[in-house]
Amino acid sequence: MPDGRVVATTDLLVEDRHFRRDWSTAADVGAKAAAQNLADVVAMGARPRTLLVGLACPASLPADWVLDMIGGLVAECRRAGASIAGGDVTGADRVMIAITALGELAVSRPVTRAGARPGDVVALAGSVGSSAAGLALLRAGKAAPGGDLDQLVRAHLRPQPPYPAGLAAAGRATAMIDVSDGLVQDLGHVAVASGVRIDIAAAELPCPEAVEMAAKLLGAQWRDWALTGGEDHALAATFPAGSVLPDGWRRVGDVREGDGVRVDGEPWTGQTGWEHFR
Amino acid sequence: MPDGRVVATTDLLVEDRHFRRDWSTAADVGAKAAAQNLADVVAMGARPRTLLVGLACPASLPADWVLDMIGGLVAECRRAGASIAGGDVTGADRVMIAITALGELAVSRPVTRAGARPGDVVALAGSVGSSAAGLALLRAGKAAPGGDLDQLVRAHLRPQPPYPAGLAAAGRATAMIDVSDGLVQDLGHVAVASGVRIDIAAAELPCPEAVEMAAKLLGAQWRDWALTGGEDHALAATFPAGSVLPDGWRRVGDVREGDGVRVDGEPWTGQTGWEHFR
Repeated sequence: MPDGRVVATTDLLVEDRHFRRDWSTAADVGAKAAAQNLADVVAMGARPRTLLVGLACPASLPADWVLDMIGGLVAECRRAGASIAGGDVTGADRVMIAITALGELAVSRPVTRAGARPGDVVALAGSVGSSAAGLALLRAGKAAPGGDLDQLVRAHLRPQPPYPAGLAAAGRATAMIDVSDGLVQDLGHVAVASGVRIDIAAAELPCPEAVEMAAKLLGAQWRDWALTGGEDHALAATFPAGSVLPDGWRRVGDVREGDGVRVDGEPWTGQTGWEHFR
Repeated sequence: MPDGRVVATTDLLVEDRHFRRDWSTAADVGAKAAAQNLADVVAMGARPRTLLVGLACPASLPADWVLDMIGGLVAECRRAGASIAGGDVTGADRVMIAITALGELAVSRPVTRAGARPGDVVALAGSVGSSAAGLALLRAGKAAPGGDLDQLVRAHLRPQPPYPAGLAAAGRATAMIDVSDGLVQDLGHVAVASGVRIDIAAAELPCPEAVEMAAKLLGAQWRDWALTGGEDHALAATFPAGSVLPDGWRRVGDVREGDGVRVDGEPWTGQTGWEHFR
């Protein structure tokens, strides 16, 4: 827009690809749909203002499901200080939700992926790995409501992006991104856009006790979840060397000259994260 | 948005519901997807600025189809003075396109559906009925490329909203709407929002010769096409009594006290237009 103050982002959620109606309540689906878009706005240093919501669904979908889904959208918008302005409804074979989020830049320039410089500190707000652990539990049929691991399933079904930390980074971070496709993959986007190498120190990634328990239970590596699981909707950013990090951020690596992403000094050779046409 | 100058609209297009890949080229699909959103922006008296484009499609969809579709989007954006800012891509069983259009208000307040007053003149920019005639020809297998009726098929596959007329109505029209679901249905929205009755004079509706030919060929009534066919993406507006209408507008009726829509003095009892869950 001509005044350069509007940030806009759009995302599609397709039933059985991005959510399952037997795993997620309608409110969960709505809240997550809002969260992933609102986090994208905040990741540019902008204050979320409003959502547009497109809904394609079969005529047989219960109206209550739609109302509950909207309730989830509204609840998450409230967490981020936004509201719903309008949308579109159409028939389709399968539920699909198209969200557009609009935000207003609080500072004069957006924080993009392209500003990281060698010497910058790489930092994380929010956690990574809990959502992937929750998804693994759901897939393994080991998601017991109320148990110790339920927080991981909740993290998957209803992620809570760290909006205040994102806004606190506006005007201070040199680059920022919403971790939606996995930390290695998303920091890889920053590395490419900025023309730098990013070194992640895996030991600095926070590992909640429940994630460790779930990894043991499923014979999995929590590190893989933390490095390649996307849907926690954490935020990753780079800050100038010597910065005092804003509230909610912790250092997890460094920016170097070069290209690509390294983990503990080694190029990452595993799967990097979500593949959109898998 | 806080400054009150941003107009935003979103629309979903679902394959086999809003378009058929055997009838429309990819460029047609893109151009029409853009047109219907850009027309919505203009119908509020705003200048279209940018589109966000969400695309859900099977992995098997040829990349050329997508590139041509984007080419159609770009071409129609150019007609309206807009560009494409970004979007999202995801896998899905069927092609679905989610467009959001953003515009900038040229005048201080948007033109809504709610400002029509008894005594106002009802006016139309663009034509109605050609698209419905084209669709009827396609359905009847009578769409011969290059023939006299081809312009109707083109009007259906690639509507050209009267953007300049819409912008000329900003600051002058008391209410305006994009005729996307049929003239009776869309003026019905204006009647409800404004708390008025709208009288359409059917004799004032322009009937292109080709539409009359198609009606004769198919044993149809052109009036039904003109009153209930939506996809021409004409604009309908109301202007204060005695207004000199801006370029591109013709008077087609009057605003009265009361409610509902009448055609030649009679309440309309036929189908009113597009039904989203039919």
